[in-house]
Order: sequence, then structure tokens, then C-alpha cells
Amino acid sequence: MASDAWLTLLAAAGAPASGVWREALKSCGTAEALVGSSQRALRALGLDEQSVAKLKAPDGAALGRSRVWLSAGRRRLVTYGGEHYPPLLAQLADAPLALWVEGENVALLSGAQLALVGSRNPTRGGRDNAEQFARYLAARGLTITSGLAIGIDGAGHRGALAEIGGTLAVLGGGLDSIYPREHTDLAAAIAERGLLVSEYAPGVEPHKAHFPQRNRIIAGLSLGTLVVEATRRSGSLITARLAADCGREVFAIPGSIHNPLARGCHFLIRGGAKLVEEAADVLVELAPQLKVDLATIEREREEPAAASTLVDAPEYRNLINLLGFDPRSIGDLAGDSGLTAAELSSMLLVLELEGFVEALPGGRYSRLRKRD
Amino acid sequence: MASDAWLTLLAAAGAPASGVWREALKSCGTAEALVGSSQRALRALGLDEQSVAKLKAPDGAALGRSRVWLSAGRRRLVTYGGEHYPPLLAQLADAPLALWVEGENVALLSGAQLALVGSRNPTRGGRDNAEQFARYLAARGLTITSGLAIGIDGAGHRGALAEIGGTLAVLGGGLDSIYPREHTDLAAAIAERGLLVSEYAPGVEPHKAHFPQRNRIIAGLSLGTLVVEATRRSGSLITARLAADCGREVFAIPGSIHNPLARGCHFLIRGGAKLVEEAADVLVELAPQLKVDLATIEREREEPAAASTLVDAPEYRNLINLLGFDPRSIGDLAGDSGLTAAELSSMLLVLELEGFVEALPGGRYSRLRKRD
Repeated sequence: MASDAWLTLLAAAGAPASGVWREALKSCGTAEALVGSSQRALRALGLDEQSVAKLKAPDGAALGRSRVWLSAGRRRLVTYGGEHYPPLLAQLADAPLALWVEGENVALLSGAQLALVGSRNPTRGGRDNAEQFARYLAARGLTITSGLAIGIDGAGHRGALAEIGGTLAVLGGGLDSIYPREHTDLAAAIAERGLLVSEYAPGVEPHKAHFPQRNRIIAGLSLGTLVVEATRRSGSLITARLAADCGREVFAIPGSIHNPLARGCHFLIRGGAKLVEEAADVLVELAPQLKVDLATIEREREEPAAASTLVDAPEYRNLINLLGFDPRSIGDLAGDSGLTAAELSSMLLVLELEGFVEALPGGRYSRLRKRD
Repeated sequence: MASDAWLTLLAAAGAPASGVWREALKSCGTAEALVGSSQRALRALGLDEQSVAKLKAPDGAALGRSRVWLSAGRRRLVTYGGEHYPPLLAQLADAPLALWVEGENVALLSGAQLALVGSRNPTRGGRDNAEQFARYLAARGLTITSGLAIGIDGAGHRGALAEIGGTLAVLGGGLDSIYPREHTDLAAAIAERGLLVSEYAPGVEPHKAHFPQRNRIIAGLSLGTLVVEATRRSGSLITARLAADCGREVFAIPGSIHNPLARGCHFLIRGGAKLVEEAADVLVELAPQLKVDLATIEREREEPAAASTLVDAPEYRNLINLLGFDPRSIGDLAGDSGLTAAELSSMLLVLELEGFVEALPGGRYSRLRKRD
């Protein structure tokens, strides 16, 4: 249960709290010690007059709202340095002092998460992609974290809820005012099976200006951020940028060059984001941090759409047969095949691109075992 | 005009000629000197018995075909080390010994070219993209080089012909047999306004196995290769690979993840190809090698689809006004604006992504002059 000291601290610090508060907390060790410090000691910790005054004469109404909100079931305050505080989020230079959390499954907070974000006005295709990626990844143990917004966010949450997997919604206001209203039912379903999370205390109205700060939490909680559809000016690009800034993976789904909602994704890909075509691509990249078996992922992947015709030609089949699993030079192969070096080099290039052959240093080639 | 020595040399060497022939030519200085060398000298140059025999007793029928073909108007043989041989192509380790060329405008061969390649079975959208990119770039002085194939190749040639710009088709057989037949009229139009080019002598039938070799010429002639639509197994990926191997730019147009013809492009982008959304993107990348004015390109670009709403909010406008063109720290700005450091950092991030603000080392920010 949240201590009065923590509620006092949060009421005084506001959200997002400036770094001075986090440093002061660290110096004192506990919220109790901080709140109990003398005014002189608080000033020495770097707090300004206004902050000291707020701490010494806390806003009773705010404290009351917090206590009332917390008194209902499956609600809690998760505090910096305390139990359930997500380790990935703690890595942020501007880690929140506390998270207000509502839901059955508080363990999701510290589990493996993928931020899935995008446009509030996606195309039908973008919405479907969001839902399908979320379903696939949630079914394989990744919690889908997003912002409860209309559009891609909602599709991501819903996709995850369609599976046994978890989902986590980070809000830009207190958890007593669900925004947007259209997602009241979705928020209730998330509280039932996943988690609602906010840095803002009960009573704080959701506000557009909170969204970039909220986005830093979405990015900070997650191993990576997947952007599904976004214009060049979308807030999703902020989430992606914050993810990259704290060393997390950024994934983006490409699209038609005539779709303005693909432009944000293309911008990210140009900047180094991983281009993903299938949900499995995300899993493969995150595999080192997850306990998933790469071989299983690969088996489940979609098969390539078209079969090769070129490699099925007899001259290619013959060359594959000539190639052993030990490296051979083009000179060797020329002798055995009757082909010129130029012909061989172009055929080997085809076979290499098809995955039948590996090019080795020194102009040698060896055969690869194909999966088919 | 092509000398008898060159015709003899090419009849003996075949196409693509192995590197021994090019080395022998370099050693002797001229085709005449090479053809006039003693058998002993030729062996010393590394030529095998069969090659020496062919050189000393050339195939009369092949020579005859070559002479007849060359006797018609606007046809010529462009030889390695000779006039009109394209400098970029000469950089290839396996540069062709000669090119058979037909068309009005031989200067195109050494001018700035972009290889535009892709699927033989593109979507309507892919075909339109190929044509539009080709039109835009041809109008700005880039010759569009491709393989005369059905699909993207054809659309690229046609797009270039629709403008004043030039286009160049590299064939996989002698120029006396235009392949594919459906493009006979297109080939005639290209000869009229651009160039038809082949490494293969008249009389050599087009063959699938020639295409990878032909693709190396397309890539080798060009400053860069643009892949418009291609499956993962497309020959266009070979062209792109060859372009990258000889240090040229590779460009790819992304597409829907559900379009199998975007997969080849996505594969290239993952491997480092430049993602392009507009033809101007190609021009910008090649600008250093072209005589084009970047400012003009930028002015002509499409405007971003959606205007920002967030940055138009009063708090952002105020912050922009507070920011000078000299760097300011968040601390300074906090004092002037009454915003917290956390609020400022998220607003500055938005402004940075929007191009209004530049983040500088040491956590300082300065305003950028926007174009609008």
C-alpha cells in the first residue's frame, strides 16, 4: 500500500517530476525520510522554495483523491526503487517517480513488452496489420504496450486481448479519467486482463501536451517500439525516437510510397529502424532478450510467395550438384562444368541470392543445406 | 569503324570474354598487335590452345555477320580502351571487351545513367511508379538504362522516352534479334532517340542464362540502380547486388508487406539500399556526381501531406519564439517559459522532429529557419 509520505511526495513533485526530486529521494533513501527532512535539508538537496513549501503543506484535496482512488480493488502505486517498478523504465534518465497502476496482472509491468504505436487515423490495412502483429506477438509472450488511442493503439491492444497474451495501456492523464471516451470498454477489458498505467495522479485531466511524456513511458517500458502507420509528423515518431535514445529496438512496417501514413515508417527505416514484413521479424530481433526458440519462429514463418524458375533450370541443377559442402574455387568448377568463369560467376551469384550457395573469402563457394 | 582485328578478336573470345583476353589486349596495346602475335606469344599471354586456334582461324560466318550488321547506319562497335567506351563500365573487373551499339546518340553511353529495373509482372502501381520516376529523372538529365524486358524495364524506357531525356537498353543477345518480340517497336523507338547496347555479337540468340551477365552491364554503366518492384527471387536483385559490389548506389521503392513484389525491395533496403519515396530522392543522392542544384530539387519536391496541429498550439508557438538562433539550454528556457524541464524536453523533441529546432551537444537547442 502507498504510504502517506509517497502521496505527499507525489502531490508536491507533480508529474512529470523534475530530476531534482529523484535525486533528493535517492539521497534520503526513502520517501518517509525525504518528507521528514527539515526545510534547510530539503533546500540543500536542491529543492526550490516552492517545492519545499508544497512538501511541508501538501494539497489536501489531491491527497484525498489519491487515497480514494487507491482504496478500490486491484489498484496500486508503484514507486521508484520499490517493488514492481519496471527495471527497463528505471534505466531512463527521466524515470517517473511513480506509476499509478490498475489491473489484475501487475507482473506485466516488469515483463517483456513491445510498444506498438501508430496513427489515430490508420488505413484499414494498417489497422489489420497492427491487430495481426499484436495477436502473433502476444501469443508468444510479448506484452503489447500502447497508449489506448483510437486507431493503431486500439488495434494493438485488441489484437493482444484476442490472445492469451497481455497488454498494457499507458495514459496521458489520471486513471480516473479514461481518454478517449470511445475506449472506455477497451480500458475496462485491459484492466481485467492486463494493466492500465499512468504517471499522472488521479484527478489530472488528460492533455495533449502530456502525450510526448506519456510516450517516453511507453518506449521506456518496452524492449522495442513498432510503428505501424504514421505520418511524418506523428507522435509515434517521438515514441520511436525516445526508444532509440534509450537503446531500444525500433521497428517499422513499410508501405506504399503513395500512402502518407507510410511516410513516418519510411523516415524511421532510413534512420536505422528495422524494416519488418512479418511479426516473426520482430521476434527474431528480440530473441536474445526473450526466451524464444529461433528455430520455432523460422518454422512458423510464411513461405516465400513465388518459387524460383531460374534455379530449376538444368544448368543450375547441374552446378548445384557439382558444388560440394566444402569450398571450391571458380577455376575448379570451370574445369568440371565446362562453363566459363564469367558464366559461373553469374550463376553462382544467382545461387547465392537464392540461398543455395555461400560465397566465401578468396573467391570460393560452398553449398548450403536448404530448408526445403 | 570496327577493324578486322577487333572483329577477329571478338569472334575468338566470345562473350562474355574471360579476363585473360582483356589482359592479353592490355599487354599487346591494340587488337591489331594481339591478333598479329605469334602463337607462342599468345600462349605466353595465357591464352589456351583453343583460344589461339580460334584467333588464328577465325569463324568466317561470324565475321561476315558482324560486318553486315555494322554496315547499316547508326551502328558501331565500341571497344575496350577505345573511343566512347563508358568510363564507369571500364571500372568493372569483368568489363566487356566491346559493346555493339545501335542508335542516334552514342554520347549517352558515357553520360550519367540510372539503372531502373524490376519485375516482369509488376502491379499496376509498380508500373506507374517506374514510368513516373523515369520521366522525372530523364527530364533532369539522367539516362534511364534497363534491359528492355516486359514490365518494369519497359515502363522505365517508356517513361524516359516520354521526356526529352535519353534511355539505353542493354540486351542479352545480338542486336539483330530483339527480345522480347513484344518490344520490337519500343526497341526501334529507343534506337531512334537513345541507344541499344549488347555485349553479344550479331547472330547470338538471346538466352535466359545471359541475363545475369547482361545485368552486370546495366549496373556497371550506371551511377546507381533503382529497383521498383521485385520478388525476393528476381533477377533485379542480381543487378542491385552487382551495382553495390562495384560501389554504385542502390535504391529501392518500398511497398505493402502484403505485396510479394515489394519483398525484393525490402530485402535490399534491409541490406543497406536507399529507401526512396520520390524520384527526387534519387536525384539528391546522386547530386554530387551530377550537375544538379540541390535547392532546385528540394523546391520541386512534393509537400508533406499533413500539416502539423501540435506545433500550431500556442504553447509551442511561444516556445519557438523564446528560442533564438543561438543555442540555449533547457535551464535557460525553463526560467523564461515557466515550463518544467520535463515539459520542455518533450516539447523540444517535438519541435526537433518537426524541423523547427536543432539539438546540439551539451543539451542545448537552437532554432532552425524553416522553409515555409
